[in-house]
Amino acid sequence: MRTAEIVTVGDELLIGQVINTNQAFIAQRLNECGIVVSGMTTVGDRLPEMIETFRTALARRDVVIVTGGLGPTHDDVTRAAICETFGVGLVHHQPSLENIERLFAKRGQRMIQINRDQAMVPEGCTVIPNVLGTAPGYLFEREGHLMAVMPGVPYEMQAMMRETVAPFLTRRFPGQVVRHRTIKTTGIAESMLADQLGPIDEIIPPSEQLTLAFLPSPTGVRLRLTAISANASLAEARIAAAEARIRAKASAHIYGVDDEDLEEVLGKMLVERGCTVAVAESCTGGLIADRLTNVPGSSAYVDRAYVTYSNSAKIADLGVPHELIVQHGAVSEEVAIAMAVGARRNAGTTFGISTTGIAGPGGATESKPVGLVYVGYADAHGALAVKFTFAEGRRRIKERAAQAALELLRKKISGT
Amino acid sequence: MRTAEIVTVGDELLIGQVINTNQAFIAQRLNECGIVVSGMTTVGDRLPEMIETFRTALARRDVVIVTGGLGPTHDDVTRAAICETFGVGLVHHQPSLENIERLFAKRGQRMIQINRDQAMVPEGCTVIPNVLGTAPGYLFEREGHLMAVMPGVPYEMQAMMRETVAPFLTRRFPGQVVRHRTIKTTGIAESMLADQLGPIDEIIPPSEQLTLAFLPSPTGVRLRLTAISANASLAEARIAAAEARIRAKASAHIYGVDDEDLEEVLGKMLVERGCTVAVAESCTGGLIADRLTNVPGSSAYVDRAYVTYSNSAKIADLGVPHELIVQHGAVSEEVAIAMAVGARRNAGTTFGISTTGIAGPGGATESKPVGLVYVGYADAHGALAVKFTFAEGRRRIKERAAQAALELLRKKISGT
Repeated sequence: MRTAEIVTVGDELLIGQVINTNQAFIAQRLNECGIVVSGMTTVGDRLPEMIETFRTALARRDVVIVTGGLGPTHDDVTRAAICETFGVGLVHHQPSLENIERLFAKRGQRMIQINRDQAMVPEGCTVIPNVLGTAPGYLFEREGHLMAVMPGVPYEMQAMMRETVAPFLTRRFPGQVVRHRTIKTTGIAESMLADQLGPIDEIIPPSEQLTLAFLPSPTGVRLRLTAISANASLAEARIAAAEARIRAKASAHIYGVDDEDLEEVLGKMLVERGCTVAVAESCTGGLIADRLTNVPGSSAYVDRAYVTYSNSAKIADLGVPHELIVQHGAVSEEVAIAMAVGARRNAGTTFGISTTGIAGPGGATESKPVGLVYVGYADAHGALAVKFTFAEGRRRIKERAAQAALELLRKKISGT
Repeated sequence: MRTAEIVTVGDELLIGQVINTNQAFIAQRLNECGIVVSGMTTVGDRLPEMIETFRTALARRDVVIVTGGLGPTHDDVTRAAICETFGVGLVHHQPSLENIERLFAKRGQRMIQINRDQAMVPEGCTVIPNVLGTAPGYLFEREGHLMAVMPGVPYEMQAMMRETVAPFLTRRFPGQVVRHRTIKTTGIAESMLADQLGPIDEIIPPSEQLTLAFLPSPTGVRLRLTAISANASLAEARIAAAEARIRAKASAHIYGVDDEDLEEVLGKMLVERGCTVAVAESCTGGLIADRLTNVPGSSAYVDRAYVTYSNSAKIADLGVPHELIVQHGAVSEEVAIAMAVGARRNAGTTFGISTTGIAGPGGATESKPVGLVYVGYADAHGALAVKFTFAEGRRRIKERAAQAALELLRKKISGT
């Protein structure tokens, strides 16, 4: 099994200003190439530490992926550290200069010297083209160990990883495979889910080189199965059998697999059935509509959404009766139902879903605490609302309420 | 200067399933205690690697913060690794058991044996209470080196860090301070901003122990100033002077500082002026409303939002004339203006803002490429729309368009 280390560079990471999303992306791609990530390291923008980290990583791993510190400004010193590590100087790379000129022409921006300087690359490297940005990447091979160096800008690095580095690694290291399968659940706590699944040995027999991990998040617990084998189809068959055992015990809570978000699963269901949806949001403030419209092609089934934050918007735009709000309050089962019904009626869609609740920190009363949320649902046959009480934290309450509304729609459509 | 290492534990991190947000949060809190993070390491759920990493980190740093792997299921082995590292066994901790019982009672859930087992803690540690979850944390001190161990669930760890670990570190290590100031810009590219600021030595005189970093993101470039000094007021004064020099050169693009999001800045401006806003979104799909309503108290100035994804919703809910869409298309300056005007008129708010564009990957025509977005604005004096062409990527286009709409409103309100 080939091992890898991911080294991310940048003071912005060490002081906690930027969340490191590059590590996860790179790790996924390496896994797809059958390479196991054994460690991740983050270092600051200082030459001696960078050089030492690069040398240590190269000595102990087959593959080292470095990102960050290749930008045009004075604080970007990764290129210098790479030159030191491999004992080389800089050379001009004409295709990189042409790429930089092309990008500036396309953006209609003026090119300055620090942009041109990015076309100087370490001698002896293979250049990794960067079509989306000005900093080229570098690929080195020394005594069977590989190092790929890329910028830290996520979408630039992602394109370079996908188009150049991953294909290169697949060719260079054929062999053992790692397969993962993630089963996504929502609406059940981690320990309850573990209890429902029963003894772990029955889900993943010890002889089969499988692992099962429980990964909780605010929107649900994910179950991750991993198989390692020299035989790809054996690994896949073992994962499929374990997935079937999990589904047999917890199917009601499972909405999707792997990278599928609930909104994508819903999108497929709506397209297949030729159905449409309208949304009426109060406490979730647009998050449900934002999630639904993140899916390419969602304009086929998302007609519209109303973010009726004020009572007057609920009355004017959704036809919620004024007396209903006076009698039950805006955060009530009755108003949630009237919102879902109103959005569906206005839009002429198959379904209407709604939320009304108290996201906090203000707005709570004795009988209506922060976290109280009603999720509404309407279709041609009628309407209903479900009451939830979520733990505190404004954003977390929005996220959980949005997830609960999408899950209610999924359950209604699938009839579970 | 005290140094720290952050060790995050979990196969879910090494395979790239989970984005590591804990590192950034912990680094920020350590910085506030005057402790510099020198490195970050991520290891998998395997005892030997964990023990070696813990020992190495303890030997080379003053403070080691460990998160992850304290959950109730079989794949959580951090507690065992800690016992090995310090050569201790487990003891029952009654307050932790009472906390677990309290949480289960509050949630109305049934408690099972794996939950109770979480009240067993390594002998000789100081327990870090976890009021939000079932896994207690541990604090060890050995030969002047400190190790804090906490669960990986972000909100649990955050509360423990804030309430117990950070106050402890501040008392334990008084002395040198690190101060940061981040100046947030939008609407200007990194290299153009660097060019506009001029020579770096004039912004941060070499004698003053200041550093300046450029941090690009899809919604704008942040400038981070850092000062290290034994004297807190000197560090703060130097940062303030450098900030003033930056503002003198780039004020038009600066919308906020530090953790301030554009929606928070806008919220304060709207509250101060007693103004309100309504939103009409097409391509951003609810993201503007979601961002505006993430701010506590936003119900005081966000009246409502319309996510008019279909043309019929634009016509019915916002009064956009049908002929306007036929003549100019839904993605046009004219429709953006009509949407902003319509939302403002319906809601009776001070301002209306809108977006209409092509988020892709489908929907483009020869004259209207993916990334074309019109942002509209309306107030009592009139209305206008601004055209943008954003780089590809559905989510990125949504994010940039939402940022551009909020920034247009900010500039209009502030009169810049």
